[in-house]
Amino acid sequence: MGKPTSKDLTRRLERVWEKLADEHLDAFLVTHVPNIRYLTNFEGSSASLLISRNGCNLVTDGRYLTAARELLQSSHGPCHTEVRSVARSYEGTLGDLLVSSNAKRLGFESDRMTVQTHIHLSTALERALGSGRSVPELVATSRVVEKVRAVKDDYERSTLREAGRLLSMVAVDISRIIEPGCQERDVAIEIDANLRNAGFERPAFDTIVASGPNSALPHAQPSTRVFTEGDIVLLDFGGVLDGYCVDLSRVATIGTPSKVARRLHSAVAAAQEAAIAVVRPGVWASEVDGAARRVLEESGLGEAFNHGTGHGLGLEIHEDPRISKRDSDRKRAIAEGSDVLLVPGMVFTVEPGAYEPGQGGVRIEDDVLVTDEGYELLTDVRRDLWVQS
Amino acid sequence: MGKPTSKDLTRRLERVWEKLADEHLDAFLVTHVPNIRYLTNFEGSSASLLISRNGCNLVTDGRYLTAARELLQSSHGPCHTEVRSVARSYEGTLGDLLVSSNAKRLGFESDRMTVQTHIHLSTALERALGSGRSVPELVATSRVVEKVRAVKDDYERSTLREAGRLLSMVAVDISRIIEPGCQERDVAIEIDANLRNAGFERPAFDTIVASGPNSALPHAQPSTRVFTEGDIVLLDFGGVLDGYCVDLSRVATIGTPSKVARRLHSAVAAAQEAAIAVVRPGVWASEVDGAARRVLEESGLGEAFNHGTGHGLGLEIHEDPRISKRDSDRKRAIAEGSDVLLVPGMVFTVEPGAYEPGQGGVRIEDDVLVTDEGYELLTDVRRDLWVQS
Repeated sequence: MGKPTSKDLTRRLERVWEKLADEHLDAFLVTHVPNIRYLTNFEGSSASLLISRNGCNLVTDGRYLTAARELLQSSHGPCHTEVRSVARSYEGTLGDLLVSSNAKRLGFESDRMTVQTHIHLSTALERALGSGRSVPELVATSRVVEKVRAVKDDYERSTLREAGRLLSMVAVDISRIIEPGCQERDVAIEIDANLRNAGFERPAFDTIVASGPNSALPHAQPSTRVFTEGDIVLLDFGGVLDGYCVDLSRVATIGTPSKVARRLHSAVAAAQEAAIAVVRPGVWASEVDGAARRVLEESGLGEAFNHGTGHGLGLEIHEDPRISKRDSDRKRAIAEGSDVLLVPGMVFTVEPGAYEPGQGGVRIEDDVLVTDEGYELLTDVRRDLWVQS
Repeated sequence: MGKPTSKDLTRRLERVWEKLADEHLDAFLVTHVPNIRYLTNFEGSSASLLISRNGCNLVTDGRYLTAARELLQSSHGPCHTEVRSVARSYEGTLGDLLVSSNAKRLGFESDRMTVQTHIHLSTALERALGSGRSVPELVATSRVVEKVRAVKDDYERSTLREAGRLLSMVAVDISRIIEPGCQERDVAIEIDANLRNAGFERPAFDTIVASGPNSALPHAQPSTRVFTEGDIVLLDFGGVLDGYCVDLSRVATIGTPSKVARRLHSAVAAAQEAAIAVVRPGVWASEVDGAARRVLEESGLGEAFNHGTGHGLGLEIHEDPRISKRDSDRKRAIAEGSDVLLVPGMVFTVEPGAYEPGQGGVRIEDDVLVTDEGYELLTDVRRDLWVQS
């Protein structure tokens, strides 16, 4: 898919500036690495980005200097940006940079910066102030870049659409290899290899292959357990394509489905269908969750559904918007952004589940893009219970 | 290898209490997930642990409640610990728990807690104080559990020893498949599959297979580049066994080694040998780095070695001790723990490297355990330049 162009990056940065204007900030320190990648295309695992009206500084260490410099000279590097090398420590280099930034109000990512880093930076600023320099005030912000990232631009929509298509193909291939006698771990190896062969950079998270009672643990690790007659087999896997994550779950049974398997599967499938059906602009994220939850509650499986309905997808496997239960404190949820109105360009999973400890669990998961009219499914593989023999 | 027993966990907790006593703390909030696993065997991805003299509280959400409750009833669960379910949010539940803790001075992990969480918790405490309750003072701490984790106990030494043995076997197998015409990505897939087949839960990080000029980028991603005559091929991979990470790098050349390959390899190999040779109790971590750095500087490759010499291994792939360049501010480095004296039980990588942008790079990496007398190599595979044809 290539990479976003310098122009794409400039547009993203403009959207961030719009948010910053609300808070009267004239500079902004980005420390969350996926946010830095989003704004610069920098792919290293360690960096900080100082945004100001005079230009940006990308701070990174020796391991990534060559890559960062090459990026800035390319057609997909951020404009008006300089690379700064970390001298002794990130905090020391950042402290110096903040002192010399000429900013008045400098935002930082309070939900991404540790208390310790904040203490270090504040101390550096106080020291400079003590020696008579004018220094910026540090202003706590929350999810500024994340809110921009929640609405995917054209490049991101194409990438996620392609990633969803590839992931669906992997799922079809995997449906063909599941049979009695397989081991959880071997199927996980096969899934991971198929993800790479399909063109994904890597699995988006630790692949889950959970059989029999293991399927009742939403985050089980693949073991040496062998699939046997009557087992539920829960598959949950994802891939990263050009940095973007997609995520899919399906459920198989080995031989004739048990009563529990049939009951859980039909309820969860109905819940997922109901949830997807309400996706469109102007709907609250919590309404999508509510639609799934209602179906499961009506089937007596309210307690068995012990997680949220979905999560945003993008440069991170879990990002905004969260699709979860409506908070009793409605005002707070809206103020904190834990519940949001859906808008075109949001991409998230819809993955209700139901788990009976000791017996088994079912989760069905697809990825959807909110469109102008409703939704587009990014993943598309048969959603029925896969009966394997 | 099984799991640490409840007794092992109690001993770990006692070592943590010893550190806490220095700071006169009567309770401690652990928010860093690997620290929680270390103290409880809890393997979920999301939890908090409140330690106090009256017992511990393990706070987790719906996804992990079943696993947490089963753990506490088993012979490898932490003693005197209760599971608390997250009500609306972790921060809300933790706030309530702190208020009712009866602690006077409550430590938190300032390098692991975000500014935002700290604000939430402080606000909850202030509110309770306002309504006349006595509440604990929040005291910033740094790397308390990490320092304990840096010295491995018997269980951990055995696990890491076994993991190193398995990783070495994987390396031998991989050395047999590298040949002209291979693709970086295919070799990475093969390594990942071999890691699982050897018994590792998963790769410890994104496997690196970097050929030709890509090998000069210390953190390159496997691409579709095909190995051709004269290429350097840098392999860097690791596995997780029962939660514990090991890490290894080796270098091959396709056909006759180039002059650059030979020069870089012989210097880096000498640097690694020199660094390993100085490992023993009572030596500063920075001396190990210094030994490697001196050799590379003498070969005119000081600038080409653009990272530290190593990092601790354990439940995280990067942990204490850091084996890096001696800080010019010696007092600060010691106070902050960025340079430490080696003690028996520490486990870390020794991985000097040298990179010539556009041409290629070499890194040789092994894992060592500090013993009473000196060191024990946990990984053992031929360290010469693998000439493949």
